[in-house]
Amino acid sequence: MESARKQEIIAEAAQLFATRGYHATSMRDLAKALALQGGSLYSHIDSKEELLWLIVDEAASQFLAMLHAVTASDTPPEATLRDAVRGHVGVIANDLAAATVYFHEWRFLTEPRRSAFLARRRDYEARFRQIVAAAVVDSPAVDPKWATTLILSATNWLYQWYDPAGPLPPDELADRYITMLFHGILMPQPVP
Amino acid sequence: MESARKQEIIAEAAQLFATRGYHATSMRDLAKALALQGGSLYSHIDSKEELLWLIVDEAASQFLAMLHAVTASDTPPEATLRDAVRGHVGVIANDLAAATVYFHEWRFLTEPRRSAFLARRRDYEARFRQIVAAAVVDSPAVDPKWATTLILSATNWLYQWYDPAGPLPPDELADRYITMLFHGILMPQPVP
Repeated sequence: MESARKQEIIAEAAQLFATRGYHATSMRDLAKALALQGGSLYSHIDSKEELLWLIVDEAASQFLAMLHAVTASDTPPEATLRDAVRGHVGVIANDLAAATVYFHEWRFLTEPRRSAFLARRRDYEARFRQIVAAAVVDSPAVDPKWATTLILSATNWLYQWYDPAGPLPPDELADRYITMLFHGILMPQPVP
Repeated sequence: MESARKQEIIAEAAQLFATRGYHATSMRDLAKALALQGGSLYSHIDSKEELLWLIVDEAASQFLAMLHAVTASDTPPEATLRDAVRGHVGVIANDLAAATVYFHEWRFLTEPRRSAFLARRRDYEARFRQIVAAAVVDSPAVDPKWATTLILSATNWLYQWYDPAGPLPPDELADRYITMLFHGILMPQPVP
């Protein structure tokens, strides 16, 4: 667990990286936003890239912890997938700045952090795919790999437009998506 | 129509903006990538932001031209939506660098270009929604607005991972998505 001060620095860095982009944010910008002396900032953080890593690593941990919780209970496959989609949307909606960095700015990581990040994301996607595969086992026309890509693509995009102050709570949004993804947009009648 | 030289400059700028980010790309980087003198670059282009605008404006034109073509023919609503999804995927897959700038770097436009860009994108989404609405008219449980958001979110995400050199042509990818989006991933049997 990071100290409260370090958490605050990481959260502010996520805001700046998400808004301006990683490359366009300097450590001086960050110190200024936090009303800190530059030297004081460096007593908490070694480098700008360390901040980038801490943001995406924490987001990866949240996604994975959510999947662990979802799969720990003994629910039927479709309900597990519903919970996973809700959870995925929830992690994004809960911290849009961190999600923006996780989905976009990660590409500015250098090795070995870049490979470490990609391994964590692949691990998450593989676990998510297992949940999808169990849910679509009776749907021979559906390839779990592409169903997973469709679901994660549609929900990842939330970081671009979702407004936490808007009228639609994350769970309701997830449920709208789930209904369409499960039953199709051409479904002839309301789903019970 | 821009001159061939200007087109080349715009294409190289799209590559650099997509790879490094808009803010992290200087006009000097661009001149170097094109093996041009800085002064020669400025004889074609006024500013870096003009390049950003030209890239996203051209992409917006391509999306809109595609929808015009799709709706010009007298096809049934479901087939029109299928063509629109294929077309949307095609515009993205055809120029991933331009799509990356269109979907991500546009936020660095300043006024009045920023508003002009958002108006063009809203126009496109409204036209796309009309196509979705016509296709889901017999599906009372489906809100065309959210169906449109789902479809465009899932397909926009392509800019993040699609590999034009990979095994899946854009139309096949679009058709996989369409089958799942139309009939749902829980469909009990293969769709004819």
